[in-house]
Amino acid sequence: MQFELSEELIEKIEYLIEQKNDAELLLHLEEVHPADIAEILSELDIEEATYIVKLLDSEKTSEALMELEEGVRERILDSLSPKEIAEELEEMDTDDAADIISELSEERQQKVIAQILDEEHADNIVELLRYDEDSAGGLMAKELVKVNENWNVTGCMSEMRNQAENVTRVHSIYVVDDRNKLKGRLSLKDLLTAPSKAHISDVYIPQVDYVNVHTPGEEVARIMQKYDLEAIPVVDEMGRLVGRITIDDILDFVKDEAEKDYQMAAGISEDVEADDSIWLLTRARLPWLVLALFGGFISVSVLGTFDDAMKEHAALFFFVPLIAAMAGNVGVQSSAIVLQGLANKSLKGSLLNRLLKEIVLSLFNGVVLAILLTVGGIFLLGFDLTFGLTIGISLISVIVIASLIGTFVPIILDKQGIDPAMATGPFITTSNDICGILIYFSIAKIILGF
Amino acid sequence: MQFELSEELIEKIEYLIEQKNDAELLLHLEEVHPADIAEILSELDIEEATYIVKLLDSEKTSEALMELEEGVRERILDSLSPKEIAEELEEMDTDDAADIISELSEERQQKVIAQILDEEHADNIVELLRYDEDSAGGLMAKELVKVNENWNVTGCMSEMRNQAENVTRVHSIYVVDDRNKLKGRLSLKDLLTAPSKAHISDVYIPQVDYVNVHTPGEEVARIMQKYDLEAIPVVDEMGRLVGRITIDDILDFVKDEAEKDYQMAAGISEDVEADDSIWLLTRARLPWLVLALFGGFISVSVLGTFDDAMKEHAALFFFVPLIAAMAGNVGVQSSAIVLQGLANKSLKGSLLNRLLKEIVLSLFNGVVLAILLTVGGIFLLGFDLTFGLTIGISLISVIVIASLIGTFVPIILDKQGIDPAMATGPFITTSNDICGILIYFSIAKIILGF
Repeated sequence: MQFELSEELIEKIEYLIEQKNDAELLLHLEEVHPADIAEILSELDIEEATYIVKLLDSEKTSEALMELEEGVRERILDSLSPKEIAEELEEMDTDDAADIISELSEERQQKVIAQILDEEHADNIVELLRYDEDSAGGLMAKELVKVNENWNVTGCMSEMRNQAENVTRVHSIYVVDDRNKLKGRLSLKDLLTAPSKAHISDVYIPQVDYVNVHTPGEEVARIMQKYDLEAIPVVDEMGRLVGRITIDDILDFVKDEAEKDYQMAAGISEDVEADDSIWLLTRARLPWLVLALFGGFISVSVLGTFDDAMKEHAALFFFVPLIAAMAGNVGVQSSAIVLQGLANKSLKGSLLNRLLKEIVLSLFNGVVLAILLTVGGIFLLGFDLTFGLTIGISLISVIVIASLIGTFVPIILDKQGIDPAMATGPFITTSNDICGILIYFSIAKIILGF
Repeated sequence: MQFELSEELIEKIEYLIEQKNDAELLLHLEEVHPADIAEILSELDIEEATYIVKLLDSEKTSEALMELEEGVRERILDSLSPKEIAEELEEMDTDDAADIISELSEERQQKVIAQILDEEHADNIVELLRYDEDSAGGLMAKELVKVNENWNVTGCMSEMRNQAENVTRVHSIYVVDDRNKLKGRLSLKDLLTAPSKAHISDVYIPQVDYVNVHTPGEEVARIMQKYDLEAIPVVDEMGRLVGRITIDDILDFVKDEAEKDYQMAAGISEDVEADDSIWLLTRARLPWLVLALFGGFISVSVLGTFDDAMKEHAALFFFVPLIAAMAGNVGVQSSAIVLQGLANKSLKGSLLNRLLKEIVLSLFNGVVLAILLTVGGIFLLGFDLTFGLTIGISLISVIVIASLIGTFVPIILDKQGIDPAMATGPFITTSNDICGILIYFSIAKIILGF
């Protein structure tokens, strides 16, 4: 049942393209799902892929284009004329068309839009381009089924059949007033069972969840997930119904956001994939490494100020990477937990309670680890008791401070309106490295006295 | 429109519970959505929450229970009798009921199941409990609408109306043969427009995507996302239709998996939240810290073997945290990119190509960073040229090796059938710390000769 992309199939298709055997190509690709066409396209080189896109029906290729990776799609669109792109866009839902057109240069956008024959479709796309892509306005499609509260059921049914033609999945019928303000919703079942002369205003459900065009995507996802909605209407500043977001788009959005968060935590600042160009990958990775390098310079200077210790307590320096690693790991753990709490809006209770809890938790973890470290240092590595206690006590202090930094830096950033995800990965490990080393040597200096 | 949880509301409800003023409580909670009831329940203490659950209709509380955090739900269920739990389960879809019952002890599970009055419902729940919770079998619900290919359209319509009563959203009608084997699907529209005496076998669509009960959840999510499906049928080993997975459950699954991956990368091995108990949080965090501590012991020993360098080249030791941090950061970046490629099945090309690309990429990044380090070391920190070159060359080598470890450890684990997500966060940073320090001092020893 499942489509399996095989090397033979790709070779066959490449051969047929070379032979310009369109009839045979069409025969091979006729039954293939657009999402699988997309997989085939990304295995071909750009000329071949463009050949296939021009050959097949835009109904099919428009869907395939949507499923392609952005990089591949961009290169295929570059080889198509504005008119050819416009033909693809005509077949797409407005939200998909707007997403794709936003990837083109300003100048090309104008040319493509001018070539779209269906003026209403073009208008809708232009409207969607105005919204931030991560807001409800940027996620919504214009396609939806709506009826006026003053219509009667019969008039409604025929009007609805018209509208439904352009809408892949109906989900809900939205009810608006004469000024297009969202009043409520109606299920197909309600409509079918209502007396045919009844007015919509008598039968609709006046309660409906909705979001505003400016609602952030995360919030839309949270509401739809909480209330198990398959679609949600979007209103403008005046409460007028302007679009609808469906759950499949939210699934894509949630997955993309999760990937971005994951990459951010790993010190990757743009959405990249393993198969992207070296240039793109460098652009995403190098800035964080430079940040870590500057942090490293600070740690070099900090260590330099403690060089008195080197004569008598050289072994202190052997424990530096251990202390730094523990500080980094604890900080990342704490920040990850807080960040998810902030994202899910599940953080409860006062800051003071959180402070107390984090101290107890990190003290407990710190003491267990310090005992292991001290016992290991004394019995495995042969250090004396004073030295063992010094590294143990330092470790406890470092862990407590690192967990407090990991917990409260994201909370403070969030309160300041800065994206707390900045305070993750390299940022937290670098600052905790520095603090950790500073605390470690300061405590050692007090106990060992150098 | 949106429900806002306020302190006044909670206080009001707590007061009414204390007064046992059921009538007033019912009035206050009547219009509240079950998902919002869940929010209220998690703000109350367990006795109060249980009071509300017993007071309200199980139709409402069953949905609220589903939305609760596992920890809170567990404690509420503990205060309910098997009969009361069974009443809640009767109102739930089979997949939700199975999820909740699986959180109870074996003994309690038996008692609760014995109290479920609807025998078919109980049977279905017991069947679902057999599957792994992350497989298609564990994700599916038994509720679906199916028709026999030999029925005619009229018989079908009436049978369908019966079945649809138990199914919240129909999505698709599945077609089976006499032995319950999945043959295809049918849309409601097709059924409405077909001549009433036609047989189903004449009008159904024989192409339908499906998964097997053992298909992993990730694969189900990938298929549903790729083909934009809102529901997918599940078959058993014999190809018999046994259940259906809907997109809202996949959205929850994708979100949970992303959270788990994120936590795993941060060195947290169980799904915990900021508000979980200190014991739970410790259990999730401490094992990784112990692992990092043992890695730290190794780095102490490695550094110890290079203590000859301390007399003449003490400054080498000041750069240890910088080198270790760079190795760790590069490794985490590389592993994050590969892990996402593996998860999305988007890794293409041969291992050799990937090796070459990773070497070029890391060499390029390494050279840029090494120039910064060497120039900074000489001009800012006042080291001589030989020393500056030593740390620069070491950094390049460390970055190349760290990025190769980060790239290939997950790929090798994946090929061995081990979850590659293990090779992330603390594991990669710890092993890269050790390798990085070893390479750094080995190169320094060659160049500086100690």
